[in-house]
Amino acid sequence: MFSKQLRSGLELKLIEERHALEVFSVIDANRAYLREWLPWVDMTTSPEVTLDWIRKSLRQFAKNSGFHAGIWLDGGFAGAIGCQPISWLNRRVEIGYWVAKHAQGKGVMTAAARAVVDHAFHEWGLNRVQIQCAAGNLKSQAIPRRLGFLEEGTVREGQLLYGTYHDLVLFGMLRSAWRVKSA
Amino acid sequence: MFSKQLRSGLELKLIEERHALEVFSVIDANRAYLREWLPWVDMTTSPEVTLDWIRKSLRQFAKNSGFHAGIWLDGGFAGAIGCQPISWLNRRVEIGYWVAKHAQGKGVMTAAARAVVDHAFHEWGLNRVQIQCAAGNLKSQAIPRRLGFLEEGTVREGQLLYGTYHDLVLFGMLRSAWRVKSA
Amino acid sequence: MFSKQLRSGLELKLIEERHALEVFSVIDANRAYLREWLPWVDMTTSPEVTLDWIRKSLRQFAKNSGFHAGIWLDGGFAGAIGCQPISWLNRRVEIGYWVAKHAQGKGVMTAAARAVVDHAFHEWGLNRVQIQCAAGNLKSQAIPRRLGFLEEGTVREGQLLYGTYHDLVLFGMLRSAWRVKSA
Amino acid sequence: MFSKQLRSGLELKLIEERHALEVFSVIDANRAYLREWLPWVDMTTSPEVTLDWIRKSLRQFAKNSGFHAGIWLDGGFAGAIGCQPISWLNRRVEIGYWVAKHAQGKGVMTAAARAVVDHAFHEWGLNRVQIQCAAGNLKSQAIPRRLGFLEEGTVREGQLLYGTYHDLVLFGMLRSAWRVKSA
Amino acid sequence: MFSKQLRSGLELKLIEERHALEVFSVIDANRAYLREWLPWVDMTTSPEVTLDWIRKSLRQFAKNSGFHAGIWLDGGFAGAIGCQPISWLNRRVEIGYWVAKHAQGKGVMTAAARAVVDHAFHEWGLNRVQIQCAAGNLKSQAIPRRLGFLEEGTVREGQLLYGTYHDLVLFGMLRSAWRVKSA
Amino acid sequence: MFSKQLRSGLELKLIEERHALEVFSVIDANRAYLREWLPWVDMTTSPEVTLDWIRKSLRQFAKNSGFHAGIWLDGGFAGAIGCQPISWLNRRVEIGYWVAKHAQGKGVMTAAARAVVDHAFHEWGLNRVQIQCAAGNLKSQAIPRRLGFLEEGTVREGQLLYGTYHDLVLFGMLRSAWRVKSA
Repeated sequence: MFSKQLRSGLELKLIEERHALEVFSVIDANRAYLREWLPWVDMTTSPEVTLDWIRKSLRQFAKNSGFHAGIWLDGGFAGAIGCQPISWLNRRVEIGYWVAKHAQGKGVMTAAARAVVDHAFHEWGLNRVQIQCAAGNLKSQAIPRRLGFLEEGTVREGQLLYGTYHDLVLFGMLRSAWRVKSA
Repeated sequence: MFSKQLRSGLELKLIEERHALEVFSVIDANRAYLREWLPWVDMTTSPEVTLDWIRKSLRQFAKNSGFHAGIWLDGGFAGAIGCQPISWLNRRVEIGYWVAKHAQGKGVMTAAARAVVDHAFHEWGLNRVQIQCAAGNLKSQAIPRRLGFLEEGTVREGQLLYGTYHDLVLFGMLRSAWRVKSA
Repeated sequence: MFSKQLRSGLELKLIEERHALEVFSVIDANRAYLREWLPWVDMTTSPEVTLDWIRKSLRQFAKNSGFHAGIWLDGGFAGAIGCQPISWLNRRVEIGYWVAKHAQGKGVMTAAARAVVDHAFHEWGLNRVQIQCAAGNLKSQAIPRRLGFLEEGTVREGQLLYGTYHDLVLFGMLRSAWRVKSA
Repeated sequence: MFSKQLRSGLELKLIEERHALEVFSVIDANRAYLREWLPWVDMTTSPEVTLDWIRKSLRQFAKNSGFHAGIWLDGGFAGAIGCQPISWLNRRVEIGYWVAKHAQGKGVMTAAARAVVDHAFHEWGLNRVQIQCAAGNLKSQAIPRRLGFLEEGTVREGQLLYGTYHDLVLFGMLRSAWRVKSA
Repeated sequence: MFSKQLRSGLELKLIEERHALEVFSVIDANRAYLREWLPWVDMTTSPEVTLDWIRKSLRQFAKNSGFHAGIWLDGGFAGAIGCQPISWLNRRVEIGYWVAKHAQGKGVMTAAARAVVDHAFHEWGLNRVQIQCAAGNLKSQAIPRRLGFLEEGTVREGQLLYGTYHDLVLFGMLRSAWRVKSA
Repeated sequence: MFSKQLRSGLELKLIEERHALEVFSVIDANRAYLREWLPWVDMTTSPEVTLDWIRKSLRQFAKNSGFHAGIWLDGGFAGAIGCQPISWLNRRVEIGYWVAKHAQGKGVMTAAARAVVDHAFHEWGLNRVQIQCAAGNLKSQAIPRRLGFLEEGTVREGQLLYGTYHDLVLFGMLRSAWRVKSA
C-alpha cells in the first residue's frame, strides 16, 4: 500500500512477506550476475530463505532501526536498498543496495539511494550516511560518487566473498553537505 | 518515506516512532471529542503511551498481521486507520479508524477506509473485511454504509466505554461484492 | 488433578501435555465426522500437532486469557470446549467446542457449555459470552439456542473450511440475562 | 472452575490471577505466624507481589513443570501447596506447602499433601516425591512422617531465613512404597 | 582467553562454542566409560548436541547462575566441572563433574573441585556447596570425601540412569568449615 | 575465577555481576577524565546502569559475539576492553577500551589490546581487527600505532560526544600482518 514514487515507473516499497516469491525469483534469475559482489546469493537457496530475511528486515523496521525497501521498476521487482541498524547514539547509518541486471544503467540505483539519503537526513534527522563498496566494484562506487559522497578510506579485507577477502572503500556524506547540495 | 496518496493533500503513512509526539498532540487536543466513542483516550496520558502503541502496531505489521496507518491532511496528522490482527486462516480482517474534529466532514475517512479495503482484497487477497461501530455512533456507521458494506447484525453490549456497555453494529464486505463495485 | 464434575460420569479438565496421545487418538478416530465443521482436523496429522496445541492453550491460560478444557465421558476423552482470548477491556469472551461422534446426543455439550458460561459470568465477572456456529451446523447451533443465547446476526463467509467459505451465525448471552435465567 | 475436592469443605484449586487479592490478604493477616518458617513473607509487601508469583506459577504449570494450588477451607483461601519444577529426567519432584494459622490442626495439610503425592505418582507417573522441612519446624515435618515418607538425611544450613541459616530435614517417598500403602 | 591454572599442565576454562568439536570428540571416545554414571552420554549423538549444551551453559553464566568449565590437561580437553543454577536466596550451589578415562587417577578432579568450591565461597560469597554422587560411584564420592565434605544423607532413587534408579549420596560443605580448612 | 595474566600485577577478567559496584566506583571517580572521549559516562548515573551494561555484555559473550573484559591492575579494577559484536561472516571484529587516570602511562592498555588481538586471530580465527579513535584522542590512537595497525581512513563525524561530532580515525590489522609480527 505504502510506496515512494521516485519517477514514473520507479518506486520503493517496504518488502513484506507477500513479496517473498517475487524477490526470490529475481535473485534466482540473476545468480551469476549478483554473486560477484553479494555474499548472500549462494545461501539464498529457496523462497523460505528470502522470507526469513524479509521477516528479519521487518523486525528491524519495527524496532526503529531502519528499513529494507524493494525497488519496483515498471511494476516488477528489480532490486533492494536497505539500512544497517541505525546508530541513534551517533546519529549515523550505513546503507547498501543491489539491482538486477536488466535494471542496470537506468539511473535506478542512484535515484533510490538519493531518496534514502534524503530520508535519513530529513525524516530521521541523522547526521551521517555511509556506504561501503568493494574496491573492485566500480559500478557500486559510482553511486556515492555521483551523489557527492566523499571517499574517506579503505577498510582492508573488510568483506569475505566466497573465500576471498576484498577491500572496502568507505564513502561518507554529512547532513551539512547534503543540505547545501539539496538547496 | 512510504505513503499512499489518497487525493491532493491527503495521504496515509505507517505510523513510526518519530510521529509519537505529533500523534499524541492531536489526541490531546481532541480529548473531549474523541472519548465519546474511543475507549483508549483516557488511558493516553502521555506521549510515552502513544509510543508504546506505535511500537506494538509496528510489531503487528512485522508479523504480517496488518498495519496501523496515520492520516495526514494538508501535512498535519489528522487521525488513524488500522487493522485487528488478520485471520489468514479465514482470510478476513476487521478495520477501525478515527479522525480529529477538524478533519471531520471532508470525506477523509471514507477515502482512507476505501484504500484499506482495496488493499485488503487486492494486495492481501483477503475474502472479507468487517467494521464494527457503536450503535449510537452514526458518523462512524456512515463509512461502511457509504462503501457498500452490508449490516449483518448487532453485537449486544460488545464494547465497554468508560463504564457503559454499547451495542456494536457489525458491517461486512466480501471480496466478490467489492470486485463488482470496483469494476 | 483438577476437574469440574458436570454430572455423574461427565467432567471437564484442563488439557495438559500428558493427555496429548489420548486427545489425538479421539481426533484420529473421528476425522470424517469432525472435519465437516472443524478447520484444523486435516492439519492434525500427529500427536505432536496436538501437543503443540495443548502447549499453546496452556500458555493462554497462564496469561489469564481463558482455558481449553477436555470433556471426559465415562472416563474417556470425548471432546473439548475452550475460549478465544478473553477481552478484559470489553469484558467479553467467545467460546467454541466439539465432541466425538459417540458422545453426541447425550447432552454432553450443553452441560459443558453451561458450565463454562457460568464460569465466565460468575468467576471471571465477564459481561458477554458469544458463540459463532456455521450456518449449516444445526447441531452446534442447538447449544446456544438451548442455553437461551440470542441470535444476533450472520457473519457472511466468516469461516473458511477446506476451500469453501461458510456464513457464521452469531449468538450472544449477556450477564444480566444469564443471572435471571440462573435465578 | 477446576478443583479437587479433598473432603467436605476442603478443596484444592489452581491459583489464578483473580485470587491475588484473597491470597495476599491471608498472607498479610498471618505475617507473624508465617514468617517463622517462610522466607518470602517479608518480601510480599503488596498484592502485586502475590500476582507476580501467581503468574510465575502459571507459567511453570504451562511448561508441564508442576503446579501451585490454593487450599480453600469452607470457601475461604487457607494456604497453598506446590511443586518445585519437576525433573522429568529423573522422574522426581519436591513439594512444599503452608497453611494459615486458623486452618492449623485440622488435617488440612495432610489431606492436601496426600492428594498431591497421589497425583505425582498416578497422574504424572513420577518415581520419587521429596519434602524438605526446617529442622526446627516440627509441625511441617509431621506431614511427611504421617504420610509414611522416610527421613533420608539433613541438608546442613540449607535454608536462609531472615539472616539465619537452618538445617533442612530431607524426606523421600518412592512410588513403589506409596503403591503398597495405597493398596 | 580466560583460564584458571590449577597446576602446571592443568587448567580450567569456560567452555565456548569453538570447543564443541573437541568436547564432543572426548565424549565420543569415552562413551562406554562415561555412560556408566552419566545420563546424558547416549543423548549426545553429535557435536550439535554438545554445542546446544555449551550455549545453554553460557546463558546460565550470563544470568549469574554459575558456569560450566572445561578441564584442559596438557593442552587437551579432559572433562568438565559445572554448577546447577545457584540459589542466591539460600546462598548455596550444587556442583557436578566428569573426567575422561585417560585423565583419571591424577588428582585432576580433586584440584578442579577444590578450585570451584573456593570460588563459590570466596568470590560468590555462598554459604554451602553440595555434591551428589551415585551410591555405587565410589570414584566420584572420593572427591568430596577428600575435600572434607560431610556425608549428609541418601536421596533414594534420586537418579535415573538408562532405565535403572540409583540412590544418591548427598555431601555438603559449609563456608565456615572451608574457611578453617583453608586457613 | 577465570583470568588472563598479562604481566605481574596485571590481568584481564570477564566482568561479572558481582563487579558492578567496583566498576561503577572507578567510573564515578574518573568522570571528568573519562567523559572527554567516552559518550556513556554521563549516562552512568548509578551502579544499576553498570549492572545493566554487564548483563548485556555477558549476553553478547553467551551468543559467541565477543566479550568485555575488565583490567585489574595490582588487584584493583582499572579499565575495560571489549568487542563490538563479531562479524563471523566477514571474520572481523572491532575493539574498544578505556583506562582510569591512575593506570595511564604504564603500558596497561597496550598489553591488554595486544592480548585481545592475539585472541581474535589465534583463538577465534578472525581475519581482521579494527580500532576507531576520535581524531583528537592521541593517547587512544597510540595503542593501535604501537601495535602496528595501519591507519586506513577517517570516518568524518563518526562519533557524537555530548553534543559535538568528532571524526574517527580508522585503524586496521590483518591476520597475515599480525602473524609476521608475532613470529
